[in-house]
Amino acid sequence: METTRRQTAERVRDVLARLVAERDVWVSTAHPDYGPHQVPLWFFWDGQAVWMCTSATSATARNVREEPRVRLALPDAFDVVLLQGEAECFPDQDVLVSAAEAFAGKFGWDPRAEEGSFLYVRVVPTAVRAWRGTSELRGRVVMRDGMWLE
Amino acid sequence: METTRRQTAERVRDVLARLVAERDVWVSTAHPDYGPHQVPLWFFWDGQAVWMCTSATSATARNVREEPRVRLALPDAFDVVLLQGEAECFPDQDVLVSAAEAFAGKFGWDPRAEEGSFLYVRVVPTAVRAWRGTSELRGRVVMRDGMWLE
Repeated sequence: METTRRQTAERVRDVLARLVAERDVWVSTAHPDYGPHQVPLWFFWDGQAVWMCTSATSATARNVREEPRVRLALPDAFDVVLLQGEAECFPDQDVLVSAAEAFAGKFGWDPRAEEGSFLYVRVVPTAVRAWRGTSELRGRVVMRDGMWLE
Repeated sequence: METTRRQTAERVRDVLARLVAERDVWVSTAHPDYGPHQVPLWFFWDGQAVWMCTSATSATARNVREEPRVRLALPDAFDVVLLQGEAECFPDQDVLVSAAEAFAGKFGWDPRAEEGSFLYVRVVPTAVRAWRGTSELRGRVVMRDGMWLE
């Protein structure tokens, strides 16, 4: 499948639009003992960071407490968007209210109202790659060192 | 979104059908120094194993040589299929011809004809989880210790 190769600024616009519009993200974490782990989670984009929420007893929660580096991918395997960053963890009683409200508003589900404990995970991306098919592999880096490229 | 909860045998049939029909898989690997990594790759299912192919210099190739444990996910973030297993690596000059031919036949692309070196990665799943939405989280394990459940 061949497409016109987008310039960097267009890719950045497309990535930002999808971060607002999409609901699911593939979350890849690792643990020194248990190896890699991958699961889809709901996410909310606040303009700077991806916010996710997972059971405090999940493999994702266990992993990011030990190894904060994570990789995130938007669902589409052709229109690829990969984010790289470090996870900051917020137990549900210590999360920013604005973030928890925005998350609950997007999904109609408030983990703070659940019986079990949940962990909010915030990832400010430091590197982002975006490409549609092999013709766009060149120029796929659209954020480096936390700065969107132009 | 609510769905009828599928029984295990139905989930196994659905998983096997998708392993034949799908083209892309999210590949999650880890490296003790570099942390987690995630990328979509083309794959071919031979009935027992997932076969992928990646540049011999890719992060995925580097990671699986050091840490063979991998997680694979079919693309859909609602109709989730997660595979867990260990990667076996075959440099493109040492791969089973039947696997390389099947891969090339599926994608119309033969990595063995490329100038650069490629690594074929074979994963026999040992655990598989499949669920459509939260209503199916219970009963999501459909393979354990390499055996499909019934």
